[in-house]
Amino acid sequence: MDTWDALRSRRNVRQYDGRPIPPEDIDRILEAGWRAPSASNKQSRDYVVVTDRQQLEELSRVWQGAGHVASSAATIAVVYPEAEDERSSALGAFDQGQATMQMMIAAADLGIGSGHSAVGDHEMARRILGYPDGYRCDMLIALGYPADRPLRPIEHPNRRPLAEVVHRGGW
Amino acid sequence: MDTWDALRSRRNVRQYDGRPIPPEDIDRILEAGWRAPSASNKQSRDYVVVTDRQQLEELSRVWQGAGHVASSAATIAVVYPEAEDERSSALGAFDQGQATMQMMIAAADLGIGSGHSAVGDHEMARRILGYPDGYRCDMLIALGYPADRPLRPIEHPNRRPLAEVVHRGGW
Repeated sequence: MDTWDALRSRRNVRQYDGRPIPPEDIDRILEAGWRAPSASNKQSRDYVVVTDRQQLEELSRVWQGAGHVASSAATIAVVYPEAEDERSSALGAFDQGQATMQMMIAAADLGIGSGHSAVGDHEMARRILGYPDGYRCDMLIALGYPADRPLRPIEHPNRRPLAEVVHRGGW
Repeated sequence: MDTWDALRSRRNVRQYDGRPIPPEDIDRILEAGWRAPSASNKQSRDYVVVTDRQQLEELSRVWQGAGHVASSAATIAVVYPEAEDERSSALGAFDQGQATMQMMIAAADLGIGSGHSAVGDHEMARRILGYPDGYRCDMLIALGYPADRPLRPIEHPNRRPLAEVVHRGGW
């Protein structure tokens, strides 16, 4: 798909049609995350991908807003080292945001919808995903084909007016 | 450009060939940032775009690693409300990372290179960009056509082995 169409097609998709995602498409989305930049190229992000239905259902219980994970075709958990201070925490969050966006765009390019979820119960997430002490997961990216309508460029996204958000030369 | 090519072509570009970027291309990059998702669709991000050479040179002094801003064709400053606590700070940083990535991919699609810079001297940044009290800028995105070689898909990015970063079913 053309890049500009993919960027404009990504939307928050939380209901999926049940079709599996071909493994090579999951691999491409993971490669997109792997390619994402990070501060000083530290690359302190790992990805745990889950496709087993029972495991997805368990994972959907880590937060009240994670219900859509249960019916996703695959969910990618972004795992990273515990931050030592607020500055590291913000840098890590920024890098996770970059990686998440890159994966969601790669998914949209393949017609695959994506929906964020935070993590509330960190001990449950650790038990289900098996990452070691010293690591943390704050973001799940659920993936699947949209149940309602295919992805296509959104003409009028729900955003503050562009002219209010963009300042030219100064605020 | 094809999405997958744009994703693989983005690289850290800090030397620019001096050509200006057409205004409509700058607008597209800004629109990409405007379209980026945010937690609860709060959209608490503003963008200040700078193209004036003298202003770019001033802006390049806000951090030791911002030198490339001086010769960029345009630089976009991501501005957002001061966070009230560590959780808000991390959520805000995540959303800024998403917006930054989306803008960098939109730039790569147009053959335009991009390079991050942090901000060290926040008072100087505020004076140059003019954003009000209660707001903060931690990220500049410098844009320009690469001085060395055009953007093209990178076959072997400098990353940890993919098989080490990706875990299937569990860590």
